[in-house]
Amino acid sequence: MRTTLARRLTAEFLGTLFLLAAVVGSGIMGETLAGGNDAIALLGNTLATGAILAVLILIYGPVSGGHFNPAVTLGFLLRREITPGVSLAYVVVQLTGGLCGVWLAHVMFGEPAFTASLNARTGIGVWVGEFVATFGLLATILGCLRYCAAAVPYAVGLFISAGYWFTSSTSFANPAVTVARSFTDTFSGIRPEDAPLFILMQLTGAIVATLVIGWLLRDPAKK
Amino acid sequence: MRTTLARRLTAEFLGTLFLLAAVVGSGIMGETLAGGNDAIALLGNTLATGAILAVLILIYGPVSGGHFNPAVTLGFLLRREITPGVSLAYVVVQLTGGLCGVWLAHVMFGEPAFTASLNARTGIGVWVGEFVATFGLLATILGCLRYCAAAVPYAVGLFISAGYWFTSSTSFANPAVTVARSFTDTFSGIRPEDAPLFILMQLTGAIVATLVIGWLLRDPAKK
Amino acid sequence: MRTTLARRLTAEFLGTLFLLAAVVGSGIMGETLAGGNDAIALLGNTLATGAILAVLILIYGPVSGGHFNPAVTLGFLLRREITPGVSLAYVVVQLTGGLCGVWLAHVMFGEPAFTASLNARTGIGVWVGEFVATFGLLATILGCLRYCAAAVPYAVGLFISAGYWFTSSTSFANPAVTVARSFTDTFSGIRPEDAPLFILMQLTGAIVATLVIGWLLRDPAKK
Amino acid sequence: MRTTLARRLTAEFLGTLFLLAAVVGSGIMGETLAGGNDAIALLGNTLATGAILAVLILIYGPVSGGHFNPAVTLGFLLRREITPGVSLAYVVVQLTGGLCGVWLAHVMFGEPAFTASLNARTGIGVWVGEFVATFGLLATILGCLRYCAAAVPYAVGLFISAGYWFTSSTSFANPAVTVARSFTDTFSGIRPEDAPLFILMQLTGAIVATLVIGWLLRDPAKK
Repeated sequence: MRTTLARRLTAEFLGTLFLLAAVVGSGIMGETLAGGNDAIALLGNTLATGAILAVLILIYGPVSGGHFNPAVTLGFLLRREITPGVSLAYVVVQLTGGLCGVWLAHVMFGEPAFTASLNARTGIGVWVGEFVATFGLLATILGCLRYCAAAVPYAVGLFISAGYWFTSSTSFANPAVTVARSFTDTFSGIRPEDAPLFILMQLTGAIVATLVIGWLLRDPAKK
Repeated sequence: MRTTLARRLTAEFLGTLFLLAAVVGSGIMGETLAGGNDAIALLGNTLATGAILAVLILIYGPVSGGHFNPAVTLGFLLRREITPGVSLAYVVVQLTGGLCGVWLAHVMFGEPAFTASLNARTGIGVWVGEFVATFGLLATILGCLRYCAAAVPYAVGLFISAGYWFTSSTSFANPAVTVARSFTDTFSGIRPEDAPLFILMQLTGAIVATLVIGWLLRDPAKK
Repeated sequence: MRTTLARRLTAEFLGTLFLLAAVVGSGIMGETLAGGNDAIALLGNTLATGAILAVLILIYGPVSGGHFNPAVTLGFLLRREITPGVSLAYVVVQLTGGLCGVWLAHVMFGEPAFTASLNARTGIGVWVGEFVATFGLLATILGCLRYCAAAVPYAVGLFISAGYWFTSSTSFANPAVTVARSFTDTFSGIRPEDAPLFILMQLTGAIVATLVIGWLLRDPAKK
Repeated sequence: MRTTLARRLTAEFLGTLFLLAAVVGSGIMGETLAGGNDAIALLGNTLATGAILAVLILIYGPVSGGHFNPAVTLGFLLRREITPGVSLAYVVVQLTGGLCGVWLAHVMFGEPAFTASLNARTGIGVWVGEFVATFGLLATILGCLRYCAAAVPYAVGLFISAGYWFTSSTSFANPAVTVARSFTDTFSGIRPEDAPLFILMQLTGAIVATLVIGWLLRDPAKK
């Protein structure tokens, strides 16, 4: 273990907090300024999310691994690179950090602390979207870690930037983000009742990607 | 050979699938949100395509070389860095992966599985555009590989991002992409009857670039 | 000490000058061209600011550390990596360079040398925004310096790019920038009377981040 | 000398050709698609120019140094890192390549081969802009070369991306680009009669930057 558990959990907390502040805050900023053109709002939302992800993984990656995402923690658990106990602690602080991030964005932009989102995100298209997004995110992390680990922060930022545009669900790809975004009735929100299926698809995508990439990158000499 | 052929072909399949899902999906997203302003739609389309290309080459490059493109495979064949048999297998999975990527984008955005594009792309301007785009793409790959191989993923993403704006054809630069995009009647589509000349210009551009860059970067001591 | 004090101060002067010229100049350009759509203006403003920051830290970082920011200098003073006397000299040239940068932008765009801004930026939301922005900026610099120092220029550019969109104050995060921007009645300006609280929040954020990141990244073996 | 003169000149020719094709082509594309919103057109123009610059320096930098710009060649001549004879040959192929790039963009977009631009760019503001832009470009190249040479391609792309927005002249910063752009009556053009003063300011900026950065980065031990 690189460092103490307290520091690892603090890193996960701060990272997920800033991630959600960035996702929700830039969504509000974009919607406010874009004058009704959602593509322009999404450009600002994308730019802020992709950039902050790269930065947060650069800062906190060496401390905690920079997951900020229960689906990523699940992937490392399946690979036995993190213990079940620590995984659970990670998920708890990720969920807590995410909610604090939404609250922080709301304070900055003068919104109530929490509001239930009315933003419907349901149907086969977006469910497939979340599977694709989380498969791709895990493939990005596990794929880059094997041969070009220093590129992971940038690759994750780039993948999610792409995902905001090419998946119909705009790539939540993260159960902690999904829970947190159900508490904001702004641009980036999701109705609470739509969250469970998003999370189910995310966890499925993470598991499938961990298996596929594990096979794809396994040293062929080892059988 | 780094790894087994099955893994190399899987990497080419997954990469081309995600590439087409990103190109077609972000085209639909951009067109849907941009309210008729095609420049804004193209910004989103560009961002998603450039970002996913860098990511896919980072992930799958160490496995298969990260071609996702018969014109790139042709370049390596001319340089005798891949055998004719493997090249053929690469092209088959690239074409298959591309079609699956279009289908995946259509599922995510609620479109029919496949639709013939009605998007006319013909004339001397766009043919020259495809020659320029594919020449530039091969020059990027072969040029960077020689002295700064670690930069290839980013350089390819940046080149295609530029190409979406500076070539009149928006830089397909890839026969598998061209075939696949003839099956989508959305923002990024191309009429099936316009595809053959695109592909001809792409292959010509790839051959010329392989020769020119081969000469330009040849060790002068070797004569 | 790497080099002479004269060279270090010149580097801080040139860097802060170009930073402000970029912030103010691109704000004017964006506002002029965007036809009233502030989101588009902010996209241009963001792109120019993030890009120039990365470049300036690449150029001048090896000479002076590339602070361009009294809050950053304060962080390094707290860590005893710069003396109080040199810190004071840094802050003086940062303030001077910032004002010269505003003047330069005004000359380029045909504005009067200096104009008091009428742009109100006040209230709990933006004050919290400046705390968050400067905390995040210092976390970015100190966090990356420890394990991936070569990434600092890009990480700072990316963090501020994100901050322009996700903080309600658009991330001034810099007292020299705040003073300088109170002298321009254009897109990026801030009313002189709103500057002191911005600066107070910035310095507070810098101090808290220096303490938190210092603890988080301290070698655990050292107690 | 790394390679033969013929290869170096070919690299300068191809690089300047693609640079101008990208600048002029993306200007036409942006203007055509943006529906009259020049900020959106400039975003596309910026993205294409910054991206292609990074790519071209990555490809051709190891062969010719990747100048594509008489002002850059002048800087290296002042530093005695290139001979006067080779400098002259570089400038000739840069001018030729630039004109061919404009012609190529015009062929791709169905414009006449060459048209005199009617785009007025004159006055103290834009002249100062060109001085600032070229000073900054040379500072970027010479500054990064000393301590982080591998970053030069990205730094140049980022600096020019910023310059398109923060200088009133949109940062031509290149006499070959200036001459070439006087031959296109499209978005990126400049009236032929405005070109000489642009070039004068560019060469002045290059000389001043070479002296300032030379002093700033000189090894202090050498006095």
